[in-house]
Amino acid sequence: MNKTPPSPGRLIAASLGPGDPWLITRAAWRVLESAPCWAWPESRQEGGGYAIAIVQRAGLPLPAHTLPLAFPMTRDILVLARHWQAAAEQVLAVLNRGMDVVFLVEGDASFFATFGHLQRTLQAMDPAIQVEIIPGVPSPLAAAALTRRGLCDGDQSLALVSATVGMARIDRLLTDFETVVLLKVRPVLDPLLDLLQTRNLLDKARFVERAGAPEERVVDNVWSLKGTQVHYLSLMIVHCNDGEAALGDRR
Amino acid sequence: MNKTPPSPGRLIAASLGPGDPWLITRAAWRVLESAPCWAWPESRQEGGGYAIAIVQRAGLPLPAHTLPLAFPMTRDILVLARHWQAAAEQVLAVLNRGMDVVFLVEGDASFFATFGHLQRTLQAMDPAIQVEIIPGVPSPLAAAALTRRGLCDGDQSLALVSATVGMARIDRLLTDFETVVLLKVRPVLDPLLDLLQTRNLLDKARFVERAGAPEERVVDNVWSLKGTQVHYLSLMIVHCNDGEAALGDRR
Repeated sequence: MNKTPPSPGRLIAASLGPGDPWLITRAAWRVLESAPCWAWPESRQEGGGYAIAIVQRAGLPLPAHTLPLAFPMTRDILVLARHWQAAAEQVLAVLNRGMDVVFLVEGDASFFATFGHLQRTLQAMDPAIQVEIIPGVPSPLAAAALTRRGLCDGDQSLALVSATVGMARIDRLLTDFETVVLLKVRPVLDPLLDLLQTRNLLDKARFVERAGAPEERVVDNVWSLKGTQVHYLSLMIVHCNDGEAALGDRR
Repeated sequence: MNKTPPSPGRLIAASLGPGDPWLITRAAWRVLESAPCWAWPESRQEGGGYAIAIVQRAGLPLPAHTLPLAFPMTRDILVLARHWQAAAEQVLAVLNRGMDVVFLVEGDASFFATFGHLQRTLQAMDPAIQVEIIPGVPSPLAAAALTRRGLCDGDQSLALVSATVGMARIDRLLTDFETVVLLKVRPVLDPLLDLLQTRNLLDKARFVERAGAPEERVVDNVWSLKGTQVHYLSLMIVHCNDGEAALGDRR
């Protein structure tokens, strides 16, 4: 009889890309097909089950063990910390049975993703837990592909920021960078459009919502969005200082 | 007898990710398996055949038609323009036979890639040519996954620039952003290390070379690179203003 406890399983972040199951990497696909347990964030509000929706669209069957982790859509740090703590405890219990857990991540795990919270909380509980991160296609690159226009090249520079950093900050970025990608534009869409108009950049901007998902939308005339509601997974690409590329205009 | 000329083929950019064949997306893999013609950049200098090397490591057989396109490693715009013109003419000849051409791209086609040159040159010759871009995993996200530390989260901001933009510019970015990723560090590695030392940021920096390739290298003690030669596919991640993340320290 073997009384040795099993070695703990590994926590594997599987980045799934922005929404199109074809944009899942072969590495993530392999791990989804073989892992005994998937965990993913869920929320009663919209978007909370976005990651699991991607693998469902891919037609992959659920594994034997599943861990939907409940999260509220809140910016209250104490509430979030309590939920991450509870989520990490659930994951740790599975890992301690010797089972690998694959955490499903929309986009890429290192890029504006919540995986870092789970990783930190879990490793604070047990520093010996092994973590593997499978990178993926981030939404700005899927969006750029849809617009058929590169984000940057040569000696150019690219800023990627949450649009919630404030209009004064965005105004400076629009001066300093060739290309600025603004994530999470929903709560500030109207002031952002006003800024782009003031800076005479409306025709240099492209709006992309849910790149890769069935409901994906690319809007060239961004001013037409004024006063409308957009999805929370939406971004704006601004080619604010494109000038002439090395071999001619980039259009 | 059908004398109608065939409809032109499509130009498809297949982003292959940074080097690991497992980081190829399912969409790129499908197109590699089915396309009748691959084109890729080649150079007598190092790295010129990096994209074709990725699919060779993947074990994919060459298709019936192949178009290795010769490029010199030069910054001379006139020389480059002549080579892109010649490359586009070769690709156009295949497209006009009604055949799709898959152009192999290391990393992502919209992110510091040369695909934009081919696309612009080709569409200047024939604006009707259809272009499809399959996005991929960019090297900074593969590098971040290797370091097991996210690049940005919440309201943070991320700058991605060629390290050749100048030390004064980099100095400002290190103040203004939570995270800065410097691409193409080889020609400026020593002055960059001096700047990081002056800014007391050496222990916030990670160096990653050829992420995903068999020769990949992650260096935590970046000062140990002083005076050494590194590969041209190398980058530095600097967590310059990490402070406290929402749910505790990010380490």
